[in-house]
Amino acid sequence: MNEEKDTIELMENGHSIYLPHLSIDCVIFGYHEQQLKVLLLKWKNRNRWSLPGGFIKNEENLRTAASRILKERTGLDDIFLQQFHTFGEPTRSERSPEDVEHLSSITNTPLDMEHWLLKRTVSICYYAVTEFSKVDPQPDFLSEQCEWQEIDRLPELIFDHRDMIEEALKTLRLHIYHQPIGYNLLSEKFTLPEIHDLYETILGKALDRRNFAKKLLSLGLIKKLNERKSIGAHRSPYLYKFDKRKYEKALKSGIVLVI
Amino acid sequence: MNEEKDTIELMENGHSIYLPHLSIDCVIFGYHEQQLKVLLLKWKNRNRWSLPGGFIKNEENLRTAASRILKERTGLDDIFLQQFHTFGEPTRSERSPEDVEHLSSITNTPLDMEHWLLKRTVSICYYAVTEFSKVDPQPDFLSEQCEWQEIDRLPELIFDHRDMIEEALKTLRLHIYHQPIGYNLLSEKFTLPEIHDLYETILGKALDRRNFAKKLLSLGLIKKLNERKSIGAHRSPYLYKFDKRKYEKALKSGIVLVI
Repeated sequence: MNEEKDTIELMENGHSIYLPHLSIDCVIFGYHEQQLKVLLLKWKNRNRWSLPGGFIKNEENLRTAASRILKERTGLDDIFLQQFHTFGEPTRSERSPEDVEHLSSITNTPLDMEHWLLKRTVSICYYAVTEFSKVDPQPDFLSEQCEWQEIDRLPELIFDHRDMIEEALKTLRLHIYHQPIGYNLLSEKFTLPEIHDLYETILGKALDRRNFAKKLLSLGLIKKLNERKSIGAHRSPYLYKFDKRKYEKALKSGIVLVI
Repeated sequence: MNEEKDTIELMENGHSIYLPHLSIDCVIFGYHEQQLKVLLLKWKNRNRWSLPGGFIKNEENLRTAASRILKERTGLDDIFLQQFHTFGEPTRSERSPEDVEHLSSITNTPLDMEHWLLKRTVSICYYAVTEFSKVDPQPDFLSEQCEWQEIDRLPELIFDHRDMIEEALKTLRLHIYHQPIGYNLLSEKFTLPEIHDLYETILGKALDRRNFAKKLLSLGLIKKLNERKSIGAHRSPYLYKFDKRKYEKALKSGIVLVI
């Protein structure tokens, strides 16, 4: 891929390909063994971190655009994205003089202040959660790094991308009670400590082990298998799995957990 | 107000006042004594119903725009609006030949197909719930009626406005467990049947009276007052009120109700 050509094409012809004033940003959470991370890109030749984002084609459906943008910018495919909020502060996407200079340097032409990339942009945000040990993100032609960063040690981010992450986290914490988020993040069979750790990590708070397990079991959302996981000579905890039918029924009928 | 002048101004100069390709629509639910309604507008001289909606000014914040639009189109003020979803199917706002003709007739000029009102529009949606007996909605210069319609007997609506109402209702039903929605819809002191009816109506399903009351009380979310409501000679049910402190603590700590 001719990277310089791609960048120049985006800057010079983007206004005729994409809807003006609109963008999409993706907050991709990654979970693995008690760690919650978020996927960030680092701009090429600049110490600037951002969420993977991009623009909506003139005739493109929003969800299709979100998936395409995520794939183009990070290589991640088949990720179930959910819209959670649209950010539209009038000054949210104002670019600093350094950023304008940086953009100008790409095409070797000072950027006109009427350039489409400098207009007010309203950004429609999507989020997803994945098991980060199972995917291999790759930076696109605009970025030099694409990596998982710990949620409580984020670098400085452009625009309002930190607010987006916070809002996505709130949504995830609400949805974890209403949607079978665990399905994607645990193996089909898991131990009680594994599901307990998942909920503690996502909710960012300690949950009493005994009560947590008791609640999940008494609601019938998980069931104990007649099978153990072999961890070591003296440790072989029972395995559990989600009771999909009950889980979905509970989700439909209202709320599931009081934790 | 010169209504014709306002309409012509909107059609002829809207493109320089508002962000292109973007709109805001408001789903306003009204609750009163076991009825859940939604606020709709009927276009002037046309049998077309829609949600109150409008456009975002070039420098305007989204939330401010939503409140302004609701006020301009229905007269409703001081309503707490929450964003819930952005709708952006490429063809969602396509206008029928009859609608284009209707719009053309307003300015007495055939509408150019490049006219800003005919472009693809992505709509950011907000919702709110209010006590409908306490507000007096008024149609704006574009509409001949502005009224509460029963949620399960809606007239045909333009564009994807019916989807918007359904999505808003889903959000409301999720939020009723997480946000103190009852505060605005019940008097400060209420009877158990009153709060039970509210939840049943919003959730659209029957809830066992005894269990419902027991749960609210055992979680400490409402408290019984040493005071009764006088309904008739032989009926004087106890009054209750929300325990705001406990309610907010419960909301923060996670989920509140299993109903």
